[in-house]
Amino acid sequence: MVKVKIIGAGGFGGVGAIELLTRHPQAEIACLQDVTDIGTPISALYPHLAGYCDAKIVDAGDPLARQDVDVVFMATPDGVGMTLASDYVNAGVKVIDYSGDFRFDSEADYAEYAGWIGRDTSHKAVALLPETVYGLTELHRDEINPDRKIVGNPGCFAVSCLLGLAPAASRKLIQPRSVICDCKTGVSGAGKKPNAAFHYPARYEMMNAYKLAGHQHVCEIERELSLLAGEQVVTTFTSQVVPVCRGIMSSLYADLKNEMNADDAVRLYREHYQKEPFVRVLDRSAAVGSMHVRGTNRCNLVVDVDERTNRLRVISYIDNLVKGQAGSAVQNMNRLFGLEETAGLERPSQYP
Amino acid sequence: MVKVKIIGAGGFGGVGAIELLTRHPQAEIACLQDVTDIGTPISALYPHLAGYCDAKIVDAGDPLARQDVDVVFMATPDGVGMTLASDYVNAGVKVIDYSGDFRFDSEADYAEYAGWIGRDTSHKAVALLPETVYGLTELHRDEINPDRKIVGNPGCFAVSCLLGLAPAASRKLIQPRSVICDCKTGVSGAGKKPNAAFHYPARYEMMNAYKLAGHQHVCEIERELSLLAGEQVVTTFTSQVVPVCRGIMSSLYADLKNEMNADDAVRLYREHYQKEPFVRVLDRSAAVGSMHVRGTNRCNLVVDVDERTNRLRVISYIDNLVKGQAGSAVQNMNRLFGLEETAGLERPSQYP
Amino acid sequence: MVKVKIIGAGGFGGVGAIELLTRHPQAEIACLQDVTDIGTPISALYPHLAGYCDAKIVDAGDPLARQDVDVVFMATPDGVGMTLASDYVNAGVKVIDYSGDFRFDSEADYAEYAGWIGRDTSHKAVALLPETVYGLTELHRDEINPDRKIVGNPGCFAVSCLLGLAPAASRKLIQPRSVICDCKTGVSGAGKKPNAAFHYPARYEMMNAYKLAGHQHVCEIERELSLLAGEQVVTTFTSQVVPVCRGIMSSLYADLKNEMNADDAVRLYREHYQKEPFVRVLDRSAAVGSMHVRGTNRCNLVVDVDERTNRLRVISYIDNLVKGQAGSAVQNMNRLFGLEETAGLERPSQYP
Amino acid sequence: MVKVKIIGAGGFGGVGAIELLTRHPQAEIACLQDVTDIGTPISALYPHLAGYCDAKIVDAGDPLARQDVDVVFMATPDGVGMTLASDYVNAGVKVIDYSGDFRFDSEADYAEYAGWIGRDTSHKAVALLPETVYGLTELHRDEINPDRKIVGNPGCFAVSCLLGLAPAASRKLIQPRSVICDCKTGVSGAGKKPNAAFHYPARYEMMNAYKLAGHQHVCEIERELSLLAGEQVVTTFTSQVVPVCRGIMSSLYADLKNEMNADDAVRLYREHYQKEPFVRVLDRSAAVGSMHVRGTNRCNLVVDVDERTNRLRVISYIDNLVKGQAGSAVQNMNRLFGLEETAGLERPSQYP
Repeated sequence: MVKVKIIGAGGFGGVGAIELLTRHPQAEIACLQDVTDIGTPISALYPHLAGYCDAKIVDAGDPLARQDVDVVFMATPDGVGMTLASDYVNAGVKVIDYSGDFRFDSEADYAEYAGWIGRDTSHKAVALLPETVYGLTELHRDEINPDRKIVGNPGCFAVSCLLGLAPAASRKLIQPRSVICDCKTGVSGAGKKPNAAFHYPARYEMMNAYKLAGHQHVCEIERELSLLAGEQVVTTFTSQVVPVCRGIMSSLYADLKNEMNADDAVRLYREHYQKEPFVRVLDRSAAVGSMHVRGTNRCNLVVDVDERTNRLRVISYIDNLVKGQAGSAVQNMNRLFGLEETAGLERPSQYP
Repeated sequence: MVKVKIIGAGGFGGVGAIELLTRHPQAEIACLQDVTDIGTPISALYPHLAGYCDAKIVDAGDPLARQDVDVVFMATPDGVGMTLASDYVNAGVKVIDYSGDFRFDSEADYAEYAGWIGRDTSHKAVALLPETVYGLTELHRDEINPDRKIVGNPGCFAVSCLLGLAPAASRKLIQPRSVICDCKTGVSGAGKKPNAAFHYPARYEMMNAYKLAGHQHVCEIERELSLLAGEQVVTTFTSQVVPVCRGIMSSLYADLKNEMNADDAVRLYREHYQKEPFVRVLDRSAAVGSMHVRGTNRCNLVVDVDERTNRLRVISYIDNLVKGQAGSAVQNMNRLFGLEETAGLERPSQYP
Repeated sequence: MVKVKIIGAGGFGGVGAIELLTRHPQAEIACLQDVTDIGTPISALYPHLAGYCDAKIVDAGDPLARQDVDVVFMATPDGVGMTLASDYVNAGVKVIDYSGDFRFDSEADYAEYAGWIGRDTSHKAVALLPETVYGLTELHRDEINPDRKIVGNPGCFAVSCLLGLAPAASRKLIQPRSVICDCKTGVSGAGKKPNAAFHYPARYEMMNAYKLAGHQHVCEIERELSLLAGEQVVTTFTSQVVPVCRGIMSSLYADLKNEMNADDAVRLYREHYQKEPFVRVLDRSAAVGSMHVRGTNRCNLVVDVDERTNRLRVISYIDNLVKGQAGSAVQNMNRLFGLEETAGLERPSQYP
Repeated sequence: MVKVKIIGAGGFGGVGAIELLTRHPQAEIACLQDVTDIGTPISALYPHLAGYCDAKIVDAGDPLARQDVDVVFMATPDGVGMTLASDYVNAGVKVIDYSGDFRFDSEADYAEYAGWIGRDTSHKAVALLPETVYGLTELHRDEINPDRKIVGNPGCFAVSCLLGLAPAASRKLIQPRSVICDCKTGVSGAGKKPNAAFHYPARYEMMNAYKLAGHQHVCEIERELSLLAGEQVVTTFTSQVVPVCRGIMSSLYADLKNEMNADDAVRLYREHYQKEPFVRVLDRSAAVGSMHVRGTNRCNLVVDVDERTNRLRVISYIDNLVKGQAGSAVQNMNRLFGLEETAGLERPSQYP
């Protein structure tokens, strides 16, 4: 059994991992660490876990936090993982970090990202950067393997955009400066901490765009698309929140270099993803939406071409807390330990 | 493996059973039968099932519908089960019926129920009535066993009320005419079929009471409570709908015959339910609600006494589609086949 | 024009008053005072007010806050009004206080209330207590008149319960210890300040009971019912929150002293309220709910008797922010200044 | 007083007009006509109207339906207005039609539209086409005047897109084939009639794109933009539904012909709309969303340029049932009768 420690266990990213690991056949939770609610059973914070996971939250100094584990999930915000990761990696413990800290494998790329989001541009664990990989399994499967020490789990919006555009970018079908990512997320993406914008009365009938000046996920989207396309891709990215709890719907647009009809695009995407266990490609007649991936590690892609303007249009649906976060982390863990990639992630969700 | 046929597979009651059975270690779905959407894969109606259950819906005349199975879930409305059950029972196939058809084991009791809800008071399968049992496992566990041929799965409101009042009734603590069941349900309780009252714009900010003249679940609540109390229990029952999808919150009130404080009531309930895998007893300080049982077969009971009026107050939370329907059906199936009672039902749900 | 100052202008209680006063034909907003967001236009906090009310929020020391006004709305929590009211009243300015500070007109009654909710039991403006009146217009209309200096605006749950039970209590029809108030509120009742329980992801599928040990509105409900009944009324009160923004649905139960059927009860309630502009009485066949009073100063009462148990059942619907708060305040203001009682309150709301 | 008849009174478009007209100082409702619920008071269908509008719905043959009125609101689907309008116009009664029937003033343009949406391309009232005008007041103010006989009220998505793009199009700033309209609507846009996609359980956590093959509002958007730009504008239009009741959020993108920064774009839009009573221009730092126009005739535009790609981005917010439907109809009525354009439409809405 893979022994897992979760740092930041008390947030939505932590609890999402707990839910998945509790039913994982080859992994077990060894330690829940956080900086608040120390000594509180996780099931007191999250009563739905009672009887399934009643472990107490410990702080970093607790003896429990120092026991041996095989992998650490760092469900922590930017800046935390980079201060903690080296000790684990040096001790032979693999690290899966949820933040932007390890999504870039060079100082220059990290500095650009950090500058974009207004953080100190110097990375605190430079030596680890060459060791990390961008943890979107569908894009970097071979690099996420038992020799890998550390993975930068991808951002939720980025997962939806990259899965939606990778086939077109990697085949060099799209104009590199024509990409628009119009993304809508559910509220859980903002985490567990209450704030004015996500107070129920302020949110229940509210749709709004935010961070128009620049969202933190833009850098990784552009970097990965550029790598795939072999040329610099620049996107216009619009983040929006609507009153759902879970889910991302990203509407992705790009001008096609050559004429292509919708059927061809669907066929090409199906080919590209034919062996992927978590990606489904649908055509524009499909009656699907965010509820159909809710609670799962799936990405549903509705692939289309607006033939009047020769523009590719892909609607990408994921659950922001599963494929957009904890599910991808488990998928990466499975790869890192040579387990079946779908272990712990293969189950139908519940509807409605 | 227990082979299961589901009749009425295309409704919420059917799909709930499919979701649970897909991950059940000792059961498998053998046939999905319905009267509409014949020939359609269930995963076309419910895209979240794609890859997990893609079986086509068949009608009763289809060869697939005539293959051998071990048990039939009749996820059908009142009046259907009683016309179909005899053939199955006679062929040695066990029946779990979701409707009111088999919740009463005598013609007289059925007639009273049928009259209450305005149906023909004559039962169409009288010979089966002595064979049936009211399928709330926590109340009739011993009677739900491998010798049993047919079970009447309980109504969702009734599950929440009976689990909340059974300890008090069976100990004869409460005045038999003082019981009030103030019940609020989520919208999924009304099923899959759209109607004006559950159209999103008419429902999203809507709380309302309905069927004040008499709800169909009153009869089984009063009958079971009367059996437990050994005297005739009469209730005032108020059904209400609020804009959640899943969940029932029943506030239950009854005058206590003798003085009792809240702590004593909690203790007594904890004793009563100490061996129950799906019932948790909490005191009034617990911060729990319907979300904490969402997606599970659990019932959370907040047990309290209003000491100023010496009135028992229990807040009972269930998921109407799981413990209130498909989960109880699977729990009953497990009993009927001598399986672990919790098989297929032991997993944490997802939050938020 | 009646000149109005609002203290606590930046909360939901303040903004609700602004919305109503902006369209009131005989009143105008003279000053918006608060302790936070000083200098900010109210329309920057609430963009829907832009162009209708762009006044800046001032603090108590601001010259604007010292100009003459006719009435002050104190949209402030318990304990604030009692420290501010005397100066206004002494200066001839009428006071309408939203909190519990002036809902009781004797030191003893206030002390009981304060003790119940865990506050200091000594009132800070004892001299004003004989001057105040409980501001539920329908119960104290004659006492709310131009000679009155100060009014204690009622609690939102209390409005719904008292309007639903007053006809029965005043006619001495109900057993005084049999009253149960099962109340469900929308989230806006908790105000503007975000907290964990009302964070969108924690609330959207959540029904729960809270404050079972005692809600602050119980005292005023019991006091007013006792006054009406001429005997001590004791209630079991259950406060619950469901995921709507606006609205209260209170299900009210009481044993009838003598037999009465539902038709008689409806008739009696209709007689009682026949001249009330804001109360409508409906029978149990009415298809109404909280959305039908949303945004208005109305109370809709569905009046019923459970004839099997001879128990009165009334379902009472209000908008917690209008009839439950700012609307009642405006109604009281109209009475205090001899205006048409419905001025500024007569308009249809919007549906859906 | 302008006497108004509403045909299709029982739908959301009808009731929205009733709400607005009830408080209009210079208009009154003379007749409510529909093809269902004949003889039913509108307040029985919509209990929030009780006491404000209790008129009975009549059919076309009713004497009440034949009395003189000044204007008819045809809140009816495509194909109805064109069969009814001529008689009214010939009798000197003005017509405001909600459907696509009179949004195009030539047979050729209508035929193109009708073909696009799969209807018979021949118009049933050809003689009226030269008389009609596209009823987005902000674009055709001078043509909507007391000499005008008939107005084609605009589509809700079109209102949001056209107000968001008109300043840029009319100044020829944008590449005509680069326009993308990514539009999200609340559920009320689909009307009162229940269906599977808008059943509460299927919708509450559901975001989805629909009609990717072509939405009916595309034609009017392209036609009006082309008229403004003086060249053929072609758009990629994506319609999406999210679980709000009221509101449209349209994210609009277009490549700029020349370099322009965000400040310049805001300034230009502010100039363009400086005299418009219902349009507000905000920059990307504004914290606004659909709730802030809810219940009003306003359009809030957040104007931005993605300077890295030199792409104009406008987020346009309206209430689909007011500015997107009944509010525009009343605004047009005001113009047609020489009333103050804002009459009946100037009031703050309610929040939250």
